[in-house]
Amino acid sequence: MRIIKSPQEMQQTALELKRSGKTIGFVPTMGFLHEGHLSLMKIARPECDVLVVSIFVNPTQFGPNEDLAAYPRDFERDEQLCEKAGVDIVFYPEPGTMYFDDASVWVDEETLSLGLCGGSRPGHFRGVCTVVAKLFNLVQADLAVFGEKDAQQLRVIERMVRDLNIPIKIIRGPIVREGDGLAMSSRNKYLSEMERAEAVCLFQSLEKARALFGVGESNADTLKSDMIRQIEKTSGAVDYIELVDDETLCPVTTVDRPVLMTLAVCFSGTRLIDNAVLAE
Amino acid sequence: MRIIKSPQEMQQTALELKRSGKTIGFVPTMGFLHEGHLSLMKIARPECDVLVVSIFVNPTQFGPNEDLAAYPRDFERDEQLCEKAGVDIVFYPEPGTMYFDDASVWVDEETLSLGLCGGSRPGHFRGVCTVVAKLFNLVQADLAVFGEKDAQQLRVIERMVRDLNIPIKIIRGPIVREGDGLAMSSRNKYLSEMERAEAVCLFQSLEKARALFGVGESNADTLKSDMIRQIEKTSGAVDYIELVDDETLCPVTTVDRPVLMTLAVCFSGTRLIDNAVLAE
Repeated sequence: MRIIKSPQEMQQTALELKRSGKTIGFVPTMGFLHEGHLSLMKIARPECDVLVVSIFVNPTQFGPNEDLAAYPRDFERDEQLCEKAGVDIVFYPEPGTMYFDDASVWVDEETLSLGLCGGSRPGHFRGVCTVVAKLFNLVQADLAVFGEKDAQQLRVIERMVRDLNIPIKIIRGPIVREGDGLAMSSRNKYLSEMERAEAVCLFQSLEKARALFGVGESNADTLKSDMIRQIEKTSGAVDYIELVDDETLCPVTTVDRPVLMTLAVCFSGTRLIDNAVLAE
Repeated sequence: MRIIKSPQEMQQTALELKRSGKTIGFVPTMGFLHEGHLSLMKIARPECDVLVVSIFVNPTQFGPNEDLAAYPRDFERDEQLCEKAGVDIVFYPEPGTMYFDDASVWVDEETLSLGLCGGSRPGHFRGVCTVVAKLFNLVQADLAVFGEKDAQQLRVIERMVRDLNIPIKIIRGPIVREGDGLAMSSRNKYLSEMERAEAVCLFQSLEKARALFGVGESNADTLKSDMIRQIEKTSGAVDYIELVDDETLCPVTTVDRPVLMTLAVCFSGTRLIDNAVLAE
């Protein structure tokens, strides 16, 4: 397994691989890898000749009051996990090599990004789209795997690929959960023991809504209210709970088409997200 | 020479060419080709295996009150000129195949785009950056040639390539002029006979400023005032005349570094641009 730190070297390597007829699979991450990330690598591995994983805590997708500095990092452990997962290249750019001081070009998605996490985190998806466009150009990937936990991000990236005609296949990787149902996240590490126990409420509220829908409840407000009640039993503060059209991400009043149920809940300073799709 | 109308077919063709080890050169145009465009093809031709020219009047770079509908078109003539210039593929997408109705992803350059043509034409460079990013992805070009007549566009595109890590070499093609010095442009066709005669004032004002600089005048306001006087002798209306730092495009007060002199002048509804660089 090779570690590449220079963006230029990454791109030259990737272009040479492409010229020699190799297909490149890609899993972009911010490191501090967990089973969720590893499941994405497992999906990508048989689909490509060369598997690239990037580890880069991208400053442009964090707001000024967010956890950029505190975001957990452990490169040695990540390296070992990548090695075990059969990764060929870890792209690990130094901070400062990815953006020029006078960087002035941004990729903006202006519809799907507006609500949900985009509403709570202004500028977040500009940072995400821009860094992912850059990484796609550096890694020259034929396919990339993104986790469904970041449901809005996944749809924004798919839209970017469509609208900018980027020649890459985006594969959706299912959410990986802890034993009790909590979606895996590098940020789970921030939780106190009590918060960790309570944090399963995100998953439980989704499951409860799914069960209600299963017995005939299709009113979005009713489902939402029930979800809010589940969260209010804990110390978590609801950032948002929404039922939106799975394609347009516009709020729905009735579940009469595929609907994304998605929520963000804060435990002290730790913001957790989760989601599930209700299909008719 | 092959004509490709479908973006998907263009991209598949380009990806296959790349896999077979071919290098692709690219000249993006809005058609109604003239000697200026042909000079760009001539520059690209020996630098690549396969030369692609795109002909697409891009709606997103025109403002609501601009000349999108009136923009001159003559595909048959363009086709013949491309054939003669040794072009391998003309990419000629149908309007409506390049943008989805719900397109929501845009590439924004936010520094170099602000003044000059960007000031007069809000949204213009968003349209330019977005379509050029799309075309680069569709054509998979190793190199592209852009004309220096569109000085700001050239610098914006170079910045986009740098900031998004697009693996393409941008080559600058010198301005090609009519016998009297008027920079070639598809829009020259709009000019009345009198306006055509007067339109050389853009070039003459640049030459006069260069001559003044040559004999020691380095005050930007003085050079600008002289240029304005040249234009005011005609029926042309100055849209802007600026002396800016050649890299940052910020206005200068003294020509003590490479300076781009650039101007836009309207004759009736026809907006012409020209520029020249003063180097110390």
